Amino acid sequence: MSIVDIQVFSIVISIVALLFAVYMFLWVKKQPLENETIKKLSIIIRQGARTFLKREYIVLALFAGICALLILSFLPKPIWEGGISRNVVMAISYLAGTCISAIAGKIGIEVATIANAKSAEAAKKGIKPAFLTGFRGGSVMGMAVVGACLLGVSILRLLTNDSSDSSAILGFSFGASSLALFAKAGGGIFTKTADISADLTGKVELGIPEDDPRNPAVIADNVGDNVGDVAGMGADLFDSNVASMAAALVIATTLDTSIGTSLHTIMVFCYAALGLLASIIGIFFARIGKKGNPTRALNNSTYITTFLYIVFTAIATKLFNLDWRIWGACIVGLVVGVIVGITTDHFTNDEKKPVRNVAHASNSGPAFTILSGVSYGFLSVLPAMIGIGVAALVAYNLCATIDATYSLEYSLFGISMSAVGMLSIVGMIVSNDAYGPIVDNSRGLAEMGNLGDDVLKITDELDSAGNTVKAITKGFSIAAAGLTVIALLGAFMNEVNAIAVQKGIEKITGFDIMNPLVFFGMLIGAAIPAVFSALLILGVDKNAQRMVKEIHRQFNEIPGIKEGTTQPEYDKCIDIATKGAIKELIPAGLTSIIATIIVGFVGGVHAIGGFLAGNIVSGLLLALFMSNSGGLWDNAKKYIEAGNEGGKGSNAHKAGVIGDTVGDPFKDTAGPSINTQITVISLISSLCASLFFSYALFK
Amino acid sequence: MSIVDIQVFSIVISIVALLFAVYMFLWVKKQPLENETIKKLSIIIRQGARTFLKREYIVLALFAGICALLILSFLPKPIWEGGISRNVVMAISYLAGTCISAIAGKIGIEVATIANAKSAEAAKKGIKPAFLTGFRGGSVMGMAVVGACLLGVSILRLLTNDSSDSSAILGFSFGASSLALFAKAGGGIFTKTADISADLTGKVELGIPEDDPRNPAVIADNVGDNVGDVAGMGADLFDSNVASMAAALVIATTLDTSIGTSLHTIMVFCYAALGLLASIIGIFFARIGKKGNPTRALNNSTYITTFLYIVFTAIATKLFNLDWRIWGACIVGLVVGVIVGITTDHFTNDEKKPVRNVAHASNSGPAFTILSGVSYGFLSVLPAMIGIGVAALVAYNLCATIDATYSLEYSLFGISMSAVGMLSIVGMIVSNDAYGPIVDNSRGLAEMGNLGDDVLKITDELDSAGNTVKAITKGFSIAAAGLTVIALLGAFMNEVNAIAVQKGIEKITGFDIMNPLVFFGMLIGAAIPAVFSALLILGVDKNAQRMVKEIHRQFNEIPGIKEGTTQPEYDKCIDIATKGAIKELIPAGLTSIIATIIVGFVGGVHAIGGFLAGNIVSGLLLALFMSNSGGLWDNAKKYIEAGNEGGKGSNAHKAGVIGDTVGDPFKDTAGPSINTQITVISLISSLCASLFFSYALFK
Repeated sequence: MSIVDIQVFSIVISIVALLFAVYMFLWVKKQPLENETIKKLSIIIRQGARTFLKREYIVLALFAGICALLILSFLPKPIWEGGISRNVVMAISYLAGTCISAIAGKIGIEVATIANAKSAEAAKKGIKPAFLTGFRGGSVMGMAVVGACLLGVSILRLLTNDSSDSSAILGFSFGASSLALFAKAGGGIFTKTADISADLTGKVELGIPEDDPRNPAVIADNVGDNVGDVAGMGADLFDSNVASMAAALVIATTLDTSIGTSLHTIMVFCYAALGLLASIIGIFFARIGKKGNPTRALNNSTYITTFLYIVFTAIATKLFNLDWRIWGACIVGLVVGVIVGITTDHFTNDEKKPVRNVAHASNSGPAFTILSGVSYGFLSVLPAMIGIGVAALVAYNLCATIDATYSLEYSLFGISMSAVGMLSIVGMIVSNDAYGPIVDNSRGLAEMGNLGDDVLKITDELDSAGNTVKAITKGFSIAAAGLTVIALLGAFMNEVNAIAVQKGIEKITGFDIMNPLVFFGMLIGAAIPAVFSALLILGVDKNAQRMVKEIHRQFNEIPGIKEGTTQPEYDKCIDIATKGAIKELIPAGLTSIIATIIVGFVGGVHAIGGFLAGNIVSGLLLALFMSNSGGLWDNAKKYIEAGNEGGKGSNAHKAGVIGDTVGDPFKDTAGPSINTQITVISLISSLCASLFFSYALFK
Repeated sequence: MSIVDIQVFSIVISIVALLFAVYMFLWVKKQPLENETIKKLSIIIRQGARTFLKREYIVLALFAGICALLILSFLPKPIWEGGISRNVVMAISYLAGTCISAIAGKIGIEVATIANAKSAEAAKKGIKPAFLTGFRGGSVMGMAVVGACLLGVSILRLLTNDSSDSSAILGFSFGASSLALFAKAGGGIFTKTADISADLTGKVELGIPEDDPRNPAVIADNVGDNVGDVAGMGADLFDSNVASMAAALVIATTLDTSIGTSLHTIMVFCYAALGLLASIIGIFFARIGKKGNPTRALNNSTYITTFLYIVFTAIATKLFNLDWRIWGACIVGLVVGVIVGITTDHFTNDEKKPVRNVAHASNSGPAFTILSGVSYGFLSVLPAMIGIGVAALVAYNLCATIDATYSLEYSLFGISMSAVGMLSIVGMIVSNDAYGPIVDNSRGLAEMGNLGDDVLKITDELDSAGNTVKAITKGFSIAAAGLTVIALLGAFMNEVNAIAVQKGIEKITGFDIMNPLVFFGMLIGAAIPAVFSALLILGVDKNAQRMVKEIHRQFNEIPGIKEGTTQPEYDKCIDIATKGAIKELIPAGLTSIIATIIVGFVGGVHAIGGFLAGNIVSGLLLALFMSNSGGLWDNAKKYIEAGNEGGKGSNAHKAGVIGDTVGDPFKDTAGPSINTQITVISLISSLCASLFFSYALFK
């Protein structure tokens, strides 16, 4: 098999995935929708989401434009050092990365805001069609994200066709990441602003149920689900997916050039394409019985995909005589990803001890809800960290033995393939993930459209499955980002050594903790995810206070809202969430980028090595802590609402609601954004390696 | 100056410090105490503290005995490898370390439980005598801790007098640390169990003021201040102080042996002894005017001590012709310590933006109190991390130029001297720290003894100064622990290389992040402080739930308590806090020790290098976050209680109380215990270096 063959194969599979997405989109669109209220509300939600996305994309286009100019002038080398053509290629690749990411987000929003209403309507006919509508809506996003990733990377590789230069792929990946950083942060702030404000004014102050149309923030909340969880999460996983391929390709290219083959690059494309193929089949066969369990249906299709992937790659490895040890590294990554997902489930599932203990502690007041939730969140970090560490260790040691001369390169390649393996089923993961907000919206629409209790029961069940699966996919995507950035650290060293060879300096063999520059970088790198999270949470905090004020104003000034005779001014709330999110997303994103550049120019490549390591370690720690404790509080509240520990209205319930409110920005704003923050920093380090090498204060 | 001279000098200064402590103790004891209620309550508090300490020490004696046996059998080398005499020396040094630490804690408790009553009584005569009694009571602890440290280390060095073997000093330091780990954890659980339970049942449920004698938990709360903040904090700083000297001495010994001098060892003792001298003078001259500001008095004496230290060491450096670069490293550490203290103040002082913003956010409910407090806590991490990183970087680079042949050793010595410099004024810091709980107790006793509003105003002012200074000293001690453990990492490498030389293997030059064993260790090391904190917080959470239950029982079953006609059963609450604390302190402490041993036997010295680095980085992050956010919530509540944002009884106040309750175990149980956890792990790694070297699964 030649390199062109495999790229053609990848492109074919990507196109199949994209066509499959179009088919699913049309299928969802074809489903009936009769209820007029739902129709109307669904349009308001879609308009709100579109408005937010448009305004966000305008700001991001400006940012991307500035970045592209900076890249053109300085990266990979300042133009005064010559070689401008590489700068042009990198700038264009960067813009391509941002555009594809933005388009994938847009597609997700469009289908999700159609599927929500159709799924609510379908629930009138039973759980089977409702589940299918929701899931197929989600799968459009899944296929679009992964298809676009593979297509983009393959075409880029075909066009640049340069086996020694990684500017194009790193630029592309940085484009995807930098957009994801802001999309995740902005969407996360929007969604939690609306969610918290709706809960506090509706549930807590007025005692009206969730998704009640009398609540002025209710539509903003639904818009938020889409812009935060669909578009934001899609951009995040698109980013991780591209980054894992980028890291693997950078290292593969070095190996290929050294050994004089193209086998390693072929492997990366082959395994990635087979992952997409497995996901397509897995999604195609996702089914639920008439009285089926939606959680089981989602999990089953994940397991089928995993199984298919293992089989496909084993066949390919045998057929094309690839190295089994690399296949092993790939599978280890995948298995560890699934295991991390399952341990996450232990800490967030309401049938397990942690959630029940927190619900019980809530009887003694909200302080205990918070304290016990924080504790379990901290505990949940350990298994995932061990899992990621073991995956990296096994992948490294497996592959280090392949070739004694290139032992380091092979072991780094092993880690990067482990990340590619973990992300191979990402098409399935994104589909499951996007399913969540769609059915969450359906539940709201069913409530507002007065579809009756039977329908509500079905949508509740679908929603609950979405929440359970979401916790697992979140753990999975954090673990995947963890392995990816370890691989990116390898890619960074690779870049540094490529420069060292050019300049005729001795190669570096690593980053020594006992070097004070490395330690200095490590301390600051570790602080960045904390600062980043703080800025995002403060953003939500400030913005929600503004929205609560607006809701109070509407209640006070517009007569008939509380009674349900006048429709509240939904758009005012959407507007506040939009403006606030766009205002608050910039400082958080920029801080991390600027910190990287400062550390790089102060301490050079060694400080950056430490900076990345510190950032990865503390980023994983905080991301896992915040995602899991947030998920736990959410489910503890739901567990109480289901009638336990005094049920709705009890003191435990009040405490549970407070816990959930604290958990909201933890799990949906800060926690999952840290992934992207780590990736962006890792990529920017590789991109600026040459600058840091030449112009640092200390070296 | 010979090595014996300097050790005699150190011993003389230590004895002066201890005599000074005795003088202060007698002075405090001599102060009058007339109020019968206060006398009686003070005795109950003392008895409670003694009972707890006795029970805790019995458990710890058992633990120390087992540890001593293990050391005797396995450390520094298993007995079957020969050289049992070193094992005996290490075991005895270990026991000496535990005993001195325990005695220092005991002395602190004794004087604090006398000074509290005397200070309350003195407040009748004005702020001047009340301040002096509180402060001099605290200084007994300060002098006892630092005097005992210097005396112990000096005598140990004189007795073993072996310039190539560090078993004795490492064993001694490990003894101090392992005791501190449990004393801090146990005391922290005790104090916050009582504090939270008293607040929740008293302030929140009944609406009675703090320190009201009708509250069954009120005495337990006062006992807790002593066992947690006096004995626990004393053990903690004793531990950091010994550890910084141990790290410096291990590296100094290597340098001395290599170069054939004893100059470096002399420097360590010289600078440490001068620090103690400066503290004695600083404490002696601590004064307050009749209407003076106690915060300013405390800060001034710290600044005087700092200034004196700089002058003394400069004179010594000139006089004995020591290297100015090492002096520079020492001063950099000290200055950075003070700067970190000041930035901590920014985040916890109620005259600054963070506290006021959190108080304002509390108007929107407790979730916003928590979210904004968490955010500022996260932000507060950055300046301290930069400070520690810069101190290490400067110290390293300053000293690396001293001798080209021993550049690495010198630079590590620079970092360790930077830690010694930061900890030089620890006598002053401990005095300020122990002052806090004494005047906190005085306030309670004044309230319970009905000393009237004028006296309460004075004790309130003294208490508030204690809280402000406490936040600063806490930042300082975390920063000091940070630098110390970086130096201990150097000491660990030193130990590993000593073994490598013995075995004739190549020395290691550091711990490379790109080595997957190092990375694997780093990920797990980073998770440990989170797990450790979780176990402590869960301990408080569980224990407080038990105590709240007991308080409710007393309210329900014993008539007349609420009216104040019957005295509650104070001892029952003390008993619950004692039993619970002793039960819960074991798992947290053991987990970290066992994790270190497992990682060491799995991944060998490289994994341990990464493990330590990950542990230091995430430990500092979490310790700073929890201490600062806890301090911030405490002061935000007090700021509201002072009449802002609606004052007492408002919604903001209720939210503020919940924030404070969450912050309590953050700042007084988990946060400051992490210091000790990091030190213990670092020391145990050095102690077991030989075992890990020989018997690890991977190498």
